[in-house]
Amino acid sequence: MSKYVYLFSEGTKDMKNLLGGKGANLAEMTNLGLPVPQGFIVTTESCASYYENNMSVTDEIKNQIFDSLAKLEELTGKKFGDANNPLLLGIRSGSRASMPGMMDTVLNLGLNDEVVEGLVKLTNNPRFAYDSYRRFIQMFADVVKGYSKHSFEKYFDQVKVDKGIENDTDLTAEDLKGIVDKYKETYLEVAGEAFPSDPREQLMDSIQAVFRSWNNERANVYRRLNNIPHDWGTAVNVQEMVYGNMGDTSGTGVAFSRNPSNGEKELYGEYLINSQGEDVVAGLRTPEPISKLKEQMPEVYEEFVRITQKLEKEYRDMQDMEFTIENGKLFMLQTRNGKRTAEAAIKIAVDLVNEGVLTKEEAILSVNPNQLDALLHPTFSKEGLAKGEVIATGLAASPGAATGKIYFTATDAVEAHEKGESLIILATLETSPEDIEGMNIAQGILTIRGGMTSHAAVVARGMGTCAVCGCGELKIDIDAKTLTTKTGQIFKEGDFISLDGTTGNVYEGKIETQEATISGNFESFMAWVDDIRDMKIKANADSPKDAMTALEFGAEGIGLCRTEHMFFEADRIFAFRKMILADTVEEREAALESILPFQREDFEGIYRVMSPHAVIIRYLDPPLHEFLPKEEKEIMELAQSLNIPVEKLHARIAELHEFNPMMGHRGCRLAVTYPEIAAMQTRAVIEAAINIGKEGKKIIPEIMIPLITDKKELKYVYDIVKTTAEKLIQTSGQTLEYKIGTMIEIPRACLKANELAEYAEFFSFGTNDLTQMTYGFSRDDGKFLNDYYKKNIFEQDPFVRIDQEGVGELVKIAIERGRQTRPDMEIGICGEHGGEASSIEFCYNAGMNYVSCSPFRVPIARLAAAQAKIKRDVN
Amino acid sequence: MSKYVYLFSEGTKDMKNLLGGKGANLAEMTNLGLPVPQGFIVTTESCASYYENNMSVTDEIKNQIFDSLAKLEELTGKKFGDANNPLLLGIRSGSRASMPGMMDTVLNLGLNDEVVEGLVKLTNNPRFAYDSYRRFIQMFADVVKGYSKHSFEKYFDQVKVDKGIENDTDLTAEDLKGIVDKYKETYLEVAGEAFPSDPREQLMDSIQAVFRSWNNERANVYRRLNNIPHDWGTAVNVQEMVYGNMGDTSGTGVAFSRNPSNGEKELYGEYLINSQGEDVVAGLRTPEPISKLKEQMPEVYEEFVRITQKLEKEYRDMQDMEFTIENGKLFMLQTRNGKRTAEAAIKIAVDLVNEGVLTKEEAILSVNPNQLDALLHPTFSKEGLAKGEVIATGLAASPGAATGKIYFTATDAVEAHEKGESLIILATLETSPEDIEGMNIAQGILTIRGGMTSHAAVVARGMGTCAVCGCGELKIDIDAKTLTTKTGQIFKEGDFISLDGTTGNVYEGKIETQEATISGNFESFMAWVDDIRDMKIKANADSPKDAMTALEFGAEGIGLCRTEHMFFEADRIFAFRKMILADTVEEREAALESILPFQREDFEGIYRVMSPHAVIIRYLDPPLHEFLPKEEKEIMELAQSLNIPVEKLHARIAELHEFNPMMGHRGCRLAVTYPEIAAMQTRAVIEAAINIGKEGKKIIPEIMIPLITDKKELKYVYDIVKTTAEKLIQTSGQTLEYKIGTMIEIPRACLKANELAEYAEFFSFGTNDLTQMTYGFSRDDGKFLNDYYKKNIFEQDPFVRIDQEGVGELVKIAIERGRQTRPDMEIGICGEHGGEASSIEFCYNAGMNYVSCSPFRVPIARLAAAQAKIKRDVN
Repeated sequence: MSKYVYLFSEGTKDMKNLLGGKGANLAEMTNLGLPVPQGFIVTTESCASYYENNMSVTDEIKNQIFDSLAKLEELTGKKFGDANNPLLLGIRSGSRASMPGMMDTVLNLGLNDEVVEGLVKLTNNPRFAYDSYRRFIQMFADVVKGYSKHSFEKYFDQVKVDKGIENDTDLTAEDLKGIVDKYKETYLEVAGEAFPSDPREQLMDSIQAVFRSWNNERANVYRRLNNIPHDWGTAVNVQEMVYGNMGDTSGTGVAFSRNPSNGEKELYGEYLINSQGEDVVAGLRTPEPISKLKEQMPEVYEEFVRITQKLEKEYRDMQDMEFTIENGKLFMLQTRNGKRTAEAAIKIAVDLVNEGVLTKEEAILSVNPNQLDALLHPTFSKEGLAKGEVIATGLAASPGAATGKIYFTATDAVEAHEKGESLIILATLETSPEDIEGMNIAQGILTIRGGMTSHAAVVARGMGTCAVCGCGELKIDIDAKTLTTKTGQIFKEGDFISLDGTTGNVYEGKIETQEATISGNFESFMAWVDDIRDMKIKANADSPKDAMTALEFGAEGIGLCRTEHMFFEADRIFAFRKMILADTVEEREAALESILPFQREDFEGIYRVMSPHAVIIRYLDPPLHEFLPKEEKEIMELAQSLNIPVEKLHARIAELHEFNPMMGHRGCRLAVTYPEIAAMQTRAVIEAAINIGKEGKKIIPEIMIPLITDKKELKYVYDIVKTTAEKLIQTSGQTLEYKIGTMIEIPRACLKANELAEYAEFFSFGTNDLTQMTYGFSRDDGKFLNDYYKKNIFEQDPFVRIDQEGVGELVKIAIERGRQTRPDMEIGICGEHGGEASSIEFCYNAGMNYVSCSPFRVPIARLAAAQAKIKRDVN
Repeated sequence: MSKYVYLFSEGTKDMKNLLGGKGANLAEMTNLGLPVPQGFIVTTESCASYYENNMSVTDEIKNQIFDSLAKLEELTGKKFGDANNPLLLGIRSGSRASMPGMMDTVLNLGLNDEVVEGLVKLTNNPRFAYDSYRRFIQMFADVVKGYSKHSFEKYFDQVKVDKGIENDTDLTAEDLKGIVDKYKETYLEVAGEAFPSDPREQLMDSIQAVFRSWNNERANVYRRLNNIPHDWGTAVNVQEMVYGNMGDTSGTGVAFSRNPSNGEKELYGEYLINSQGEDVVAGLRTPEPISKLKEQMPEVYEEFVRITQKLEKEYRDMQDMEFTIENGKLFMLQTRNGKRTAEAAIKIAVDLVNEGVLTKEEAILSVNPNQLDALLHPTFSKEGLAKGEVIATGLAASPGAATGKIYFTATDAVEAHEKGESLIILATLETSPEDIEGMNIAQGILTIRGGMTSHAAVVARGMGTCAVCGCGELKIDIDAKTLTTKTGQIFKEGDFISLDGTTGNVYEGKIETQEATISGNFESFMAWVDDIRDMKIKANADSPKDAMTALEFGAEGIGLCRTEHMFFEADRIFAFRKMILADTVEEREAALESILPFQREDFEGIYRVMSPHAVIIRYLDPPLHEFLPKEEKEIMELAQSLNIPVEKLHARIAELHEFNPMMGHRGCRLAVTYPEIAAMQTRAVIEAAINIGKEGKKIIPEIMIPLITDKKELKYVYDIVKTTAEKLIQTSGQTLEYKIGTMIEIPRACLKANELAEYAEFFSFGTNDLTQMTYGFSRDDGKFLNDYYKKNIFEQDPFVRIDQEGVGELVKIAIERGRQTRPDMEIGICGEHGGEASSIEFCYNAGMNYVSCSPFRVPIARLAAAQAKIKRDVN
């Protein structure tokens, strides 16, 4: 027989998985001898059983609940449903991970018409008793039964109006009793049955309601955003009620053992006299700072401080605690590791090491890598933000804050920039590769369409530029150059707006931003991280500027330099288009010849910054049609410039059109059809390295061939690269080390990795494409995935966190087979996953030598890599 | 030290891999004591060595060649390059598999200015000697050096003109001597060096030319079309020349030991007196039937008949032989298993079993499954074809012959059909699913665009309708309703053309066709096949008519019934579009309700035909935008019919647009978003089965859910199907067996097959999609694959023959993991590969229970499955 219900005294803080976080910590506090209102916990396994049994609680579990209830009655000396000495209960959810406010709570449970009378006698406080009763009925009807709150609240409000009263506290016991009667009538009307007077029925209904609330929509969304597995389930805490609203020697409050905002070692919190938790949340009265309690109830304060210290020592982390004072007696209702800002997280971690509480390893594990983002991007000033008016909310696509004048096309943005405008927000339907220059000079990017992995989002994150994407509530009229909100407010070109890429909010007007400040604590912390970490972190960078940022953030090389972005720049796109439209190899070679100097200079610039670190250069990847103009006007202009009939250009564009470009003529397939492109790129890569060598700077260029599926295909391109490179090196009379490798981004490449490794000197996983192919999902067409999230089929976006089971198995196969052929092969990842903490841990455990991510995620990757090592060393 | 060169007497017929087919058979004939001009064979391994060594012959091989040459001189008593007793050689290619005419040959090698004088003396025939010499120079220049034939032939023709001669044979020795001089001058001019007079140089150059010819373009194409691996390489046969042009007791001929056209047991062939092989091929003189030789040279004839019988007995198969008679003496130049028509193949196989020569298993292995196609489709009458004028050639996309009036749209074709027109050719740019009705009533389909796996090709093969696709030399003007050939000939609507889907030829006018006739031999043969075969063969069929065809061809069930084709029919597309455009679930359900009766009737019709065989029904698969109109006119009409603003319809079409539809919102993803579609389809499937049950017919419907990637996704759809089905069955009071399974067509599904098998009761591989995802290739955008074939990166189209290494590994993983969970799980394939012989063998060896293919390929699949079993039993 399984144990499904635990008294608080039967648990410990290590039983989180079974008892939930709240339950395990209540148990721990009980066993530490702290003043905790007693109770029991219905386990997370009971929740799983509830769902497995068609949403019903088995008799076995029910029996254990009532057994524990009987023990609780013994412990408290009170009786559930007994009018003379009633035990009243609070029913609260509590899963393994904190999900604040996402699930349901029922308080004051156990009241009925008789018990309330008993409570009146016992407390000698009829107002309190009836207030508790009306709150219970309303909460039960709302939370457990799902009846509209409004049906009840309207009576409450009516009585206040009738009596000319403003504050709830001015209602008399009689008023409240009348409201209770009205509530019961309403309940009968809505439910078609009387409000349940049997406390046991109330209890079982409420427990089930909490189980159900695990699966409500907001909880599902929260779990997805916070990577909490759906099958964990929630525990239910059943706890004796204590009351902070019994008068002036009662109260309720919340406190942190250190300052969660800046990490200072000081008690930080607030409380309200004569109030319940709900009142604090409602915010009708302003709470007092916790320091005031020292004056008001010095003994309670002293006890609380002692408890605080004990808990911090016990948990070895900053604690976030809830407490209630009932008639001068302190009760602890909750403790947990406190949430904190990135700045505080770093300071607390460093302080706890200095205080001898934590080892460096433990301190490193205590900081959530994703939080570091906030340290690396500008934010709005608090004052500015307080005044800011949100006009829309989109996807928080790339973190940071930005303020600037709106421009509606990349071209307009670039023009404004050239005229000296420095604060620019590019607001557009969506972006495409040709917008790269406009995106580059913008402070922030706002798009109406596209998701977290749209072009705008990916590129913005790469640049570290703030972006809000997929903001469908706004309408843009490109011709009229206007942006219209859903309330009809219109913004014109040059008007100011502000974007918060961390929340997805769009604000009216100009809000002052402040640069990220990196403290000394951050530097010591990251020094420990780098000391422990044994996986390399590289960055994806396509320009000297990006490479510089990457270096500043601690990158140890370039893991992905995309060569195609370079071709979009104004001075070379024409030559590139000429190359695409060439009729003969000779014409194509001539066009490539004119591109060569640009590309070579690009590489020289990047090499100069990165030397002596290695730079991995990916050869031309996107299908050629991406480089051709789409608008009729541009097509006409191009035809004129090229001096060819516009029909011919149209025909060529039609010929290049693809039904499924993601699976079309791109990557190494371009090099197979047009080997002269790969040859030109090799010249640029090698000649640049030779030139840099002459400046006395050493560089090891690593040439990466994308989209390989087969050994012969790789050999074909490899031969072109090798022959071209060797000839250049020989002619130069210099020595130059270089490597030729391949991306592994197609399922077949994973399976054939042993053969690919015969030529490839390194592998770099492109897990964006690999995820697309392994799932048969197009990133661009993933709207339907929303249905998958809603229906709990998928809990995670596999483009954000690597799918360890499917895609991950292919990755492991590829690594194993690649190293069968070439045991010391360098293997890494350069997709978006390379900057995501859980994926980095996977990569580390799978045996990769490095991850490469956008420059702004390098610190996150460094921390995640260190954490991965620490975790593996423990196991 | 490897042996690279073999005398004929050193080989046997089993050494084909090393000696090539021609060489092994010359060796065998030598050892059987048959009259064979002696020689030696440079092995296929030497060819591989040639390519590995940068296109050069190693000294080791060269030494072995000249050692064997010395032995050949001993054997023949002649000397290479010796004017007094010259040994002249023929140099011929010969790979493992026959590749007639694809590679190069050099004859009369060993001649120079001195040797030719010796030959004059020896033969006392100066005309013959100089004719041989001029032929040699011309052939060497052309074949070995690649100089234009025309540079030489023009002198030859000039002499004939100057002397007013018509036949080559009328040229005198003096004339020919003059031509030789002119040829040598020309050679000097073109080559910049004299014609090589050193016979050893001639020999080595020619051997290398044959090696090189392995890699010429036509050989590469031939290999790809005939599934011959590129790395096999060719052997080179070096053989003493014999001459059929030495006078009236000389001659040359070709014969088959049985009639290759109908299989009758009779010597079949022809010969030419006083001629060389080239002359027979040139066709300037009409050869005599072989029976005439009996009169002309009775002794030679008798000897030849004896040899023929000996060879047939030795090879246990019909032989195709070449011979030369030199001055009354018979020489055998080649024997090989003869090519034959399908009809002959079956008759010979059956006869050889009856004659006690072959076992049934051997007879089954002797017939190429792909040949059966010809037995199952109409062909042109011989007389008709002889008169036919080819106006264009496209891809031979679906076999058979058809003649009819041209219609340029599916709608026009259907209209003509409704007016009673029975001979219809649908000629159009390309087809799409909405053309299905027009395709169905057409005798033949001609498309300008699209490849072997285009919509037109796939659907036509499924229907067994003749089709020529991708015929880019023709132009179609849809508006003008004209078809224009590249010579400018114009065909209008209603004009007759004829199509040969087996060759890809398009003919002007009407050519009489004849239905396929299936002989008694075919029936006995297929009975043996079915007796041995232990893998089931099912068919892909979407209508009762297709199901009937499938049954007639021996299908044992339906392995794939696509439900979407049904929705395109005129009477239901409107309801289906209404469903797509519904704004609410209720509207969508109402539209589905009106589709239900149609779909149910469709299934009833198919069940009636197939009972008691199982029918696998795939749920809606294509993305919804495929069902919406594309032409503005149709869009307007639809908006009117639906009574919605045309802008709204445009908006919905734009909303449904996908960048990569192949990886978009399709398959089970539709059922996740719109569970009501899966529910409706379940109702149709189950209600139809219940109705049929009431007629006393048993059917086991098997519901197949497409595009699954994950267990939870499958469970979601499984639950909808299961709940709906159980309710219907319970209500009906009947019992009904049914299954729920899934397609395995996404790489991730292969990896997660163990989990999918928790729900799926059967697996069916969709290897079209699986190939697309595993390679990251879009079938629709595969133009670039031509570059892969040209550059020998790919030898095979992975959409035609399954990629056993990559896709195949995923298939094997899926089977193994699926059966881990469900050991007796039925597993099959329903993609195009299910009808291709080598892929069927793979499926059998991988452990599948069945393959499903288009009805017309069922006999091919039956044979291929039997062959697979026989081959496996042997190993």
